[in-house]
Amino acid sequence: MTPPPTNDAASGGDEEERRLWEEAARLGELTRELQESASALISRTWTEEQELRQRALALESDLKRVQSAVDSAARRRSSAVDPKALEKIDEELYRARCLIKEGDVASILPNKDHGRFLEMFLGPVNVRATRKEVRLKMKEEYNSYKDRTAFLFLLFPSILLILRSQIWDGCMPALPVQLYQAWLLLLYTSLALRENILRVNGSDIRPWWIYHHYCAMLMALVSLTWEIKGQPDCANKQKGVQLFLVWAIMQGVAMLLQNRYQRQRLYTRIALGKAKRMDVVWGETAGVEGQLLLLCPILFTLQIFEAYVGMLLLRIAVVGVVSEWQVIVCGILLVLMAVGNFANTVQTLVAKSRFKAKMKSSKSKNDLNQSLSLTHTS
Amino acid sequence: MTPPPTNDAASGGDEEERRLWEEAARLGELTRELQESASALISRTWTEEQELRQRALALESDLKRVQSAVDSAARRRSSAVDPKALEKIDEELYRARCLIKEGDVASILPNKDHGRFLEMFLGPVNVRATRKEVRLKMKEEYNSYKDRTAFLFLLFPSILLILRSQIWDGCMPALPVQLYQAWLLLLYTSLALRENILRVNGSDIRPWWIYHHYCAMLMALVSLTWEIKGQPDCANKQKGVQLFLVWAIMQGVAMLLQNRYQRQRLYTRIALGKAKRMDVVWGETAGVEGQLLLLCPILFTLQIFEAYVGMLLLRIAVVGVVSEWQVIVCGILLVLMAVGNFANTVQTLVAKSRFKAKMKSSKSKNDLNQSLSLTHTS
Repeated sequence: MTPPPTNDAASGGDEEERRLWEEAARLGELTRELQESASALISRTWTEEQELRQRALALESDLKRVQSAVDSAARRRSSAVDPKALEKIDEELYRARCLIKEGDVASILPNKDHGRFLEMFLGPVNVRATRKEVRLKMKEEYNSYKDRTAFLFLLFPSILLILRSQIWDGCMPALPVQLYQAWLLLLYTSLALRENILRVNGSDIRPWWIYHHYCAMLMALVSLTWEIKGQPDCANKQKGVQLFLVWAIMQGVAMLLQNRYQRQRLYTRIALGKAKRMDVVWGETAGVEGQLLLLCPILFTLQIFEAYVGMLLLRIAVVGVVSEWQVIVCGILLVLMAVGNFANTVQTLVAKSRFKAKMKSSKSKNDLNQSLSLTHTS
Repeated sequence: MTPPPTNDAASGGDEEERRLWEEAARLGELTRELQESASALISRTWTEEQELRQRALALESDLKRVQSAVDSAARRRSSAVDPKALEKIDEELYRARCLIKEGDVASILPNKDHGRFLEMFLGPVNVRATRKEVRLKMKEEYNSYKDRTAFLFLLFPSILLILRSQIWDGCMPALPVQLYQAWLLLLYTSLALRENILRVNGSDIRPWWIYHHYCAMLMALVSLTWEIKGQPDCANKQKGVQLFLVWAIMQGVAMLLQNRYQRQRLYTRIALGKAKRMDVVWGETAGVEGQLLLLCPILFTLQIFEAYVGMLLLRIAVVGVVSEWQVIVCGILLVLMAVGNFANTVQTLVAKSRFKAKMKSSKSKNDLNQSLSLTHTS
């Protein structure tokens, strides 16, 4: 460091100058020390993570090796190994694999593939949080985001339909509908991005629900190009839009109910996670039976109505009332989403009830493992 | 751990069973140890980061305090403190602030505000990379993404214009144009997201270029709702679209050149960063003079043409050839973007030349500081 510059000015100024210089030099020194500490911490953490990563990878391959030995022993039923003992060994291996995949080790393992969607929008950025609390907070924030948007999901189409019958004389102007469609595009893009990020952070969201949002994005985009202000026969031309709006209102109600249900599931998870880290997945359905009973009929009605709107759009296109390609694409997408939603809801329900039955009857590991891997993707 | 289950089977099976059980138990034990190490590492790192964070915050407030003392001493020119000495002190404080803001300390400081745009699309996710190498790699990836898309930016409108004159008889069908517009919307959204992420990671991207991409997103969205297949007078109705496509081709060329320039700047940065961490910003313009001379006329021509297209759209709307609101909005957005681009290009050039002049004439800290803070936002 260069020595403080001196001059022959009055001693008062000299004094102040020296004091300021000393302070600045001290702070400069402290800053350099801090920089060194930070740099050391980062590189030390990196080295230690690297070492743990090596251990984790080695363990994973060992686990795989022993697992295949156990599997081959189980297949050779003729062998004298006790099946009960094999199951116990299998369970031990399963628990070890779970711990690596779900515990703190997971957060320092090489990045999971982020998927093409995130890659396309964000590039190669790491969105995985290291701390478990942060990950749970992300999910909570996602749920509250869905809550907030569910209200808008109810509000916007309701306003459009009310204005249509009260003010617009049964024929909606294009701009408000397009604003609504643009909002849908924004919403679905944001949901798809957030869900992909949650998946990277270890959420067990079913892939279908993400694909479903891709379909919805595509539909919002297509509907934006869809010419709706048809003066000659407005009521007929807007029939599809009108049905879509009614469906959107129902969807809003279902979203609110679904959010409540999923939030309760998350709370159970957190509570159980605090009690015992590994058992998180076990208690998923606890205490939300009643809501599921209310939710299911609504979801199924919604899906049937969605398919109905889709078929209606296709019929309009085939009969020739509106011959634009957008009508056909939207119709196909709606039917596709309805079928996919139905299949996935049924699968989830089957997995849940099977899991419950298994939990009641026996704790045999094989069944448990199977149910778990099912609930895990729900 | 429960003891291995035993049974009275043949000793061969017994043997295998015991061996498998021992292996599984050993792996289970190793996994639990690994989990504990990972958990310990994460919480230890967190604690140490927390401590450094405290030190950094305390230092920052100390630096602010001394800085204001120096500033007030500098204002009292009557005081006997030597201005040269004050400048030296000022420089020392400035370097300390820089080190905190740009060095390794920055990566463990409380998260910079991510901005409303990222918050809206991604929710509260941390996109800041801890390691400097990762951050530089992100920027490099962003540049290569821009390279790849610049080619498409050239390709798509060229194809549309060629097909228009060769096959479509001067009247483009709606679908290909709408596909192109949807691609633009996707591209601009992705660019805006990536640039916001880069900003969080300490990139010195000028805020205008991000706002510019918001405008472009809005324009792509609006143009999707814009009815372009006007049979009665197609050539007239598509005049705006046609001009826009010509402008897009020019934009593609400019993007390619700009990317080359910025990439060279980044390489200089990395090279200098390796030599001396703090001096990264100093050498930004080294070795790219020639390209800047080529780039500037192209950029200015492009901006004038952009404004021209915008004005033309507004004229079409005012004269009444096409009376849709989309034409007016797109016209206003294009003029706005042209003016903003022009102002920001000029500001960047002024900052660069002023900085160069200052570097030649003197190394006095105040000037340097000023130039730096200018280049820093370029």
